[in-house]
Amino acid sequence: MAQRFSSSLERMQENQATPSLAEEFGVEGEWSMAVRHRIRWAECDLYGHVNHTAYLVMFEDLRVAHWRSLGQVLRADQAGPVVAKLEARYVRALAFEDEVLLTLRVPGLRNTSFTHDYAVWKNGLCFECKALLVCVKDGVSTPIPPEARRLMIERDGAKPA
Amino acid sequence: MAQRFSSSLERMQENQATPSLAEEFGVEGEWSMAVRHRIRWAECDLYGHVNHTAYLVMFEDLRVAHWRSLGQVLRADQAGPVVAKLEARYVRALAFEDEVLLTLRVPGLRNTSFTHDYAVWKNGLCFECKALLVCVKDGVSTPIPPEARRLMIERDGAKPA
Amino acid sequence: MAQRFSSSLERMQENQATPSLAEEFGVEGEWSMAVRHRIRWAECDLYGHVNHTAYLVMFEDLRVAHWRSLGQVLRADQAGPVVAKLEARYVRALAFEDEVLLTLRVPGLRNTSFTHDYAVWKNGLCFECKALLVCVKDGVSTPIPPEARRLMIERDGAKPA
Amino acid sequence: MAQRFSSSLERMQENQATPSLAEEFGVEGEWSMAVRHRIRWAECDLYGHVNHTAYLVMFEDLRVAHWRSLGQVLRADQAGPVVAKLEARYVRALAFEDEVLLTLRVPGLRNTSFTHDYAVWKNGLCFECKALLVCVKDGVSTPIPPEARRLMIERDGAKPA
Repeated sequence: MAQRFSSSLERMQENQATPSLAEEFGVEGEWSMAVRHRIRWAECDLYGHVNHTAYLVMFEDLRVAHWRSLGQVLRADQAGPVVAKLEARYVRALAFEDEVLLTLRVPGLRNTSFTHDYAVWKNGLCFECKALLVCVKDGVSTPIPPEARRLMIERDGAKPA
Repeated sequence: MAQRFSSSLERMQENQATPSLAEEFGVEGEWSMAVRHRIRWAECDLYGHVNHTAYLVMFEDLRVAHWRSLGQVLRADQAGPVVAKLEARYVRALAFEDEVLLTLRVPGLRNTSFTHDYAVWKNGLCFECKALLVCVKDGVSTPIPPEARRLMIERDGAKPA
Repeated sequence: MAQRFSSSLERMQENQATPSLAEEFGVEGEWSMAVRHRIRWAECDLYGHVNHTAYLVMFEDLRVAHWRSLGQVLRADQAGPVVAKLEARYVRALAFEDEVLLTLRVPGLRNTSFTHDYAVWKNGLCFECKALLVCVKDGVSTPIPPEARRLMIERDGAKPA
Repeated sequence: MAQRFSSSLERMQENQATPSLAEEFGVEGEWSMAVRHRIRWAECDLYGHVNHTAYLVMFEDLRVAHWRSLGQVLRADQAGPVVAKLEARYVRALAFEDEVLLTLRVPGLRNTSFTHDYAVWKNGLCFECKALLVCVKDGVSTPIPPEARRLMIERDGAKPA
């Protein structure tokens, strides 16, 4: 499993993932992107843990980085991903300054939408989320740009529906 | 339907909901809490719409108000709700200064957990979310306090599982 | 002092301030706007207090409300206030669910800029801030719209420099 | 000037600053810490620019990193820095995905307080801020821990008042 994970990671240029990351953080499954993150002060709340909304901001950053890795830009006047659905599961609480790994993969895509899986790892799974993203331009759904579509399928292993 | 909605709303002391709210915002179904909200500058992003994380902060406020209405307090050293799961659906985009209605209900509860439904309304449904909340004290799940349990069942219509 | 404060407050339509607010919160000086606020969960950090950035978001809301009270709208393609300088003093810490009063006044204005004073009150002063705001359109400074200028001087008592 | 800047940077272990950073970003003056940053989606607002509060969160991260570099931890039950005053000047607007350099230095210190200068650079100065930080434990000011005091003076060049 870790084997396939690392080979998948090696395909990403931007994020310097190494085979040992999977072992270091207890990652399971195959992921397209992996980014180290240290929990920030602003991400924690009065309970002393990462606030449930902070996870979604972390993955907003990862989603932006992924979109950029597809040769696209995020701008109000360009086709870009808009969150249509989220299913999040908070498995284990995280604390200030915890060192974690954020991962992303692209399970599938359709004409105007695609799915992302996100996860946070530290000695195994801490958080996981499935997102449905619709490609939107000027307020209406629009086909995924061809180059982005090609890379999601060929590089990220996304399955067309 | 609006009839049952309003009678449910009348049970809440804190939020001054009136029968006409359901009509004004196109609310469907029966809800225990309803709060008017005007979309804030800080809730919008570069797309010109409410950011997907901002909805969850709005409902954090509503969840806090609901917990308080159960005679409880939110403090690190007391039993309190922690988000374990979220299922959110972004139905229609909202813009800066939109006037919306936020609603909350409590579909069910178990010994140490309960569920919340959240929705945002403006000429009908704009956003909906199901949350599983675990009652946690000192990092471990703990039974819902008896008074909170009683009010969730009797006042909010929560169904014990 | 409280006398002048209340008469100033009465000039504001939007925020239902009464003479007793000054006494209730220990307000000193004369203010044009006053809004009650209960400290939110999302505004507090690991220290158990309101995070220093949260005060500035509270006053972003008040600044928006004030701009609207001048007959203006906040939109990317319209003249609107942009923060050029801030001087903030954190006098006493605030905690979750504290009931506070937020106040705003407009000490002075020039052709393309104006100043705001902000304060948070609870048994006296907790936070104060002076802001220099530049009226900006399409990325360059632009004269304050005449109607806004008139109201800032006549209603809010702003002194032209 | 750049000479002194780089030698100062070399003293920091954590942040891999090189002499060329000063030239790349148009940095002026001598700084103790320098961190590259790419403007995030969540930091921008409807105006299409970095929101004025986002700068302060960026420097909260830098302040935390600096405190850690002094051999200290940030915890509710330990002596830690609390913001007492801020003076911020927004010099030039920044946009989504701009590559900037964040810098920090420690101009001076007293028994229970110290000062930080923060700045954001991109082809010269974009933002600058002076902060007065009070060392607080259990809600009251407390002397700066000796090791932190020593490093601020010897490594960061802070001048005792």
